[in-house]
Amino acid sequence: MDYYEEAIKLARTYRGKISIKPKMKIKKQRDFSLLYTPGVAAVSKAIKEKGERFLTYKWNSIAIVTDGTRVLGLGNIGPDAAMPVMEGKALLFKHLGGVDAIPITLSVTDKEKIVEAVKAIAPSFSGINLEDIESPKAFEILEILQKELNIPVWHDDNQGTAAAALAALINALKFVGKKLEEVKIVFIGAGTANISTYRLFKAYNVKPGNTIFVDTKGVLFRGRADENELSKSNPYKYSVMQETNSENISTIEDAVKGADVIIGASSPGAIKKEYIKSMNSKPIVFALANPEPEITRKEALKAGAAIYCSGRSDMPNQVNNSLIFPGLFRGVLDVQASKITDSLAIAAATELAKYAEQKGLDKDYIIPKMSEEEVYFRIAAAVGVEAQRSGIASTNKSYDELYEEAKEIILKERR
Amino acid sequence: MDYYEEAIKLARTYRGKISIKPKMKIKKQRDFSLLYTPGVAAVSKAIKEKGERFLTYKWNSIAIVTDGTRVLGLGNIGPDAAMPVMEGKALLFKHLGGVDAIPITLSVTDKEKIVEAVKAIAPSFSGINLEDIESPKAFEILEILQKELNIPVWHDDNQGTAAAALAALINALKFVGKKLEEVKIVFIGAGTANISTYRLFKAYNVKPGNTIFVDTKGVLFRGRADENELSKSNPYKYSVMQETNSENISTIEDAVKGADVIIGASSPGAIKKEYIKSMNSKPIVFALANPEPEITRKEALKAGAAIYCSGRSDMPNQVNNSLIFPGLFRGVLDVQASKITDSLAIAAATELAKYAEQKGLDKDYIIPKMSEEEVYFRIAAAVGVEAQRSGIASTNKSYDELYEEAKEIILKERR
Repeated sequence: MDYYEEAIKLARTYRGKISIKPKMKIKKQRDFSLLYTPGVAAVSKAIKEKGERFLTYKWNSIAIVTDGTRVLGLGNIGPDAAMPVMEGKALLFKHLGGVDAIPITLSVTDKEKIVEAVKAIAPSFSGINLEDIESPKAFEILEILQKELNIPVWHDDNQGTAAAALAALINALKFVGKKLEEVKIVFIGAGTANISTYRLFKAYNVKPGNTIFVDTKGVLFRGRADENELSKSNPYKYSVMQETNSENISTIEDAVKGADVIIGASSPGAIKKEYIKSMNSKPIVFALANPEPEITRKEALKAGAAIYCSGRSDMPNQVNNSLIFPGLFRGVLDVQASKITDSLAIAAATELAKYAEQKGLDKDYIIPKMSEEEVYFRIAAAVGVEAQRSGIASTNKSYDELYEEAKEIILKERR
Repeated sequence: MDYYEEAIKLARTYRGKISIKPKMKIKKQRDFSLLYTPGVAAVSKAIKEKGERFLTYKWNSIAIVTDGTRVLGLGNIGPDAAMPVMEGKALLFKHLGGVDAIPITLSVTDKEKIVEAVKAIAPSFSGINLEDIESPKAFEILEILQKELNIPVWHDDNQGTAAAALAALINALKFVGKKLEEVKIVFIGAGTANISTYRLFKAYNVKPGNTIFVDTKGVLFRGRADENELSKSNPYKYSVMQETNSENISTIEDAVKGADVIIGASSPGAIKKEYIKSMNSKPIVFALANPEPEITRKEALKAGAAIYCSGRSDMPNQVNNSLIFPGLFRGVLDVQASKITDSLAIAAATELAKYAEQKGLDKDYIIPKMSEEEVYFRIAAAVGVEAQRSGIASTNKSYDELYEEAKEIILKERR
């Protein structure tokens, strides 16, 4: 893949992807006195005494935090090797969302120590984006930080993918004419990505009993040999095992038979063409393993898939968290939200779906492309409105105001 | 002081002083694939497998870390109100040193927790600049981190001011024709700033016995009522009490009588004109309290000071850590130094002194001004050479190469 060579060459030439930029020019001695001491003391006082919010870049800054234990498809490569990914993400945050995101790669991997470290640096930022942290501790870290910090905390690998998948599901079902409440969904892969997707689907009223999970050991059903062990080692997966699969099906063949949707977040080869052939009419296949999907587009279509989505940028229907996080964070920052809830993720997903629907759905246009910049302004506005509605925001702006504000910030930074 | 109003206005208009800037333009879908997934995986692999250093912005990034317990003259104002100062510092780091500095304001103030937090985030950065942390824990934190991290750690309030003061002392003594080994120095104020200055002076061969410290309780001498208590509560100050003041003088009047140099890092009013009148010929007075010095320039000159230095940017002879830290960090980053030692701080100080000497010393030009940009290139080169000489660098470059490299990086960022 020639991307690789070119990516390395770019990294060597630019020595990274981001840098710090002063917002103003310093020309004379007086500028130092205004921008540093003694002038800066007045700014500190205004924050201390009046709690003024918009006097430092913090209003627009977030941390991208990783311990490097589960980076892309590369696994546990540690904090140093994780930096390019965090930096690339910071680039996207800025380019697509106008957000100042700082890569924070941690030397600690214990759950408690990660939580401690993030809490310690939290006053530096207006939001936390957790990234590429291994499962199941990623769930726990997210839950603890969401509870204990009063700024938005988001785990993008999970929640971002989940929201993009929800948008794709909404439109795919619309396109094939099926109803969310009636469809049977099989998840291939029971890692954090699919479990998060399932959880967001559930929050959006998908019935748990209508879904079935498959992991590397087969179908998740009650009575499986590792049920007890799971209840201790991975309570998240255990609760999925309890809630889903109302008929308690135990084989993959039975699981996929008659299914309307298969969602893979697993590894290449995990979705077989026979699965698709045995599905209900107009099968919907999301093969989200990256960069190599569970089944290729060609094979899936040949096996009868009506809709095929993947994580790949070089194919139609890319289900990509990058469609969600820039606008979502833009939205929460612009309304000074104190957290990110499921309802905000759903607002982002439904707005994303609506955008594609309004442009006209097609089997190869179920979800917008990353290059459609209006998407980000719209998601920011929709998320901001929902945050205000649900009482976790500090502003009271209209959709149109939020849209224009987001558009201005995002485009200004690109010029 | 109208600085204050204008500083607040600037902060409100720009909403802070720094932002993240992508190093390259993103124009088409392919750019995403190169700069994020899948291309970014190749960069991660190159770091993991070959240890390549210059593939991310980390080679040039440092953290400015504070807990907000001793911010400027404002005291313990906490992490939120400390942000403007850290951000202003980040602006100077970029403008004067071409360094990407990230403000990190901590929610924790315990020594151990600060150490833990900095160690946790250390893989994100190539250097740590501690800032505005109260004494005496600041010393301990510095010592522990210098020992336990393999990247440069610097406490700028202390070490930066110390290095600038050393440069000013070297030139002031040269100007009045006195010898370092022979002069008597009185330190007014025994906080971290003056103790750090003393320690660096000592490393530069000032004899401890020829110095005397004064704190809010009077002269530090052996036998003072709080000697035992100090040995526990502030071992740094205690050891100063033991080493200095060879004649064990116990009154301020006796201490300043015949002194050649007074260095204040205390509060307005702490240097009285009578002190100066009782000093040796050609008295040298550093009144470094900021923004209001221990004695005004006017009063000090009237009392007979031959040389007057202060921390103020609107007067001649500003002893300012901003003359040191940008070039010093530029230098250590350019040679990939694993730490900052006293010998590097001395290299920065002596280069700073030499610059002014070569331009021609005058009673109002003992130390260069912040606006003399060549200073930063020269300090970077001198520090880089010294780091290489002392075996803590990873490169082998000449002074001229380092000078040109620093100049290019610093000026490039300003354009």
